[in-house]
Amino acid sequence: MPYELHYWPMIQGRGEFVRLALEEAGADYVDVARQDDDSGGIGPMLDRLSDPADPRPPLAPPFLRDGDVVVGQSAAILLYLGPRLGLVGASESDRIWTHQLQLTVADAVDEAHDTHHPVGVGLYYADQKPEALRRAAEFRDERIPKYLGYFERVLAANGGGRLVGANLCYADLSLLQLVDGLLYAFPRATAAALRRTPQVAALHETVARRPRLAAYLASERRIPFNEDGIFRRYPELDP
Amino acid sequence: MPYELHYWPMIQGRGEFVRLALEEAGADYVDVARQDDDSGGIGPMLDRLSDPADPRPPLAPPFLRDGDVVVGQSAAILLYLGPRLGLVGASESDRIWTHQLQLTVADAVDEAHDTHHPVGVGLYYADQKPEALRRAAEFRDERIPKYLGYFERVLAANGGGRLVGANLCYADLSLLQLVDGLLYAFPRATAAALRRTPQVAALHETVARRPRLAAYLASERRIPFNEDGIFRRYPELDP
Repeated sequence: MPYELHYWPMIQGRGEFVRLALEEAGADYVDVARQDDDSGGIGPMLDRLSDPADPRPPLAPPFLRDGDVVVGQSAAILLYLGPRLGLVGASESDRIWTHQLQLTVADAVDEAHDTHHPVGVGLYYADQKPEALRRAAEFRDERIPKYLGYFERVLAANGGGRLVGANLCYADLSLLQLVDGLLYAFPRATAAALRRTPQVAALHETVARRPRLAAYLASERRIPFNEDGIFRRYPELDP
Repeated sequence: MPYELHYWPMIQGRGEFVRLALEEAGADYVDVARQDDDSGGIGPMLDRLSDPADPRPPLAPPFLRDGDVVVGQSAAILLYLGPRLGLVGASESDRIWTHQLQLTVADAVDEAHDTHHPVGVGLYYADQKPEALRRAAEFRDERIPKYLGYFERVLAANGGGRLVGANLCYADLSLLQLVDGLLYAFPRATAAALRRTPQVAALHETVARRPRLAAYLASERRIPFNEDGIFRRYPELDP
């Protein structure tokens, strides 16, 4: 039975970290909200989120259904999928370390989101633009270099162009996505940071050329970045 | 050999979620930065964070050392400690679900932090007060009720006053800490939300009365809330 991914159909968002893992592994999955038949759309997702009979409800998308198991929170979904998709090492220490890296990517993603929504998720960007300008300045000057510098240090210590051991793991894929999103939203600041983090830049380029991932990224399944997602290109935020 | 917890010694912060688990389990641990002998203080923590020879460096405190294993990111630390301390179920589905709840607590904690630092972590609160007033309003009106309402739904579906199954898990302890912090920082808004989430309120009260936890909370080991931590009482943010 295929995995079912439930996520907003118009954005990459937090669902994309799960999509990249499923695509790279060649997993059998259905991106339910993007199907246009009777069983698709966001109806099943919204039903599940508000189902009073669900004993273990996710708070928000994305969530993954694998038979009777439903897992929400993108990092927890990858914790669940990692061993099943061959995208994490076998030892407990490798698994915890990979997850630690994933949570650090997630922190960076949260901060990228907050550059355009510093005051609140319930307001439009246009209603918090002065605050966004201030927050984006610190993000560009301090936070992007800090996060990419950290991953550079991890890649250098590990060697071989991977974050953990010799094999690709889900955190490598999530780092690729983080860099891709930062390049979209903050092209100038991110390019400058990547010049000082060559191993991060190399991971971003080489992993994207893996056959399955390259096919996915070139396909219609890859939703283009846009200004409804986490990573938004507002030129005034990256002057 | 005792666990070593490394975290800032003057605040509860993100280290507190780990402390509560260690204390409730009666684990043998050393809060290294709070020791005043030659092996204590924040020196060992800072050394470890900047050690160029460390192949798996944490980005930031807290981190836990267990012999040769070092784990950073509070949710990952609890993922590691849960089975060792008897604070998570034995099945994979219980463990993933507990972790999913932990990540949702962590999201709420991040948002609580951002109420007083909406523009950036590198600035003082006094330099972002207008932005904080705006962000706190949404947090009080929308986010506190949303998060506590979600945990109320989970507690109600599970029954028995626990988030997962019949036994206490680390996410119960972290929910206690979230509520405690919210009551400190936003006493009016949180009291109002708790009147609509009686099971969350009951968990907060009854878990804090467990013998080991009550002893810890009354001890000097429990650092008081203060305005350097995540949860800060700025009266203007909860008028």
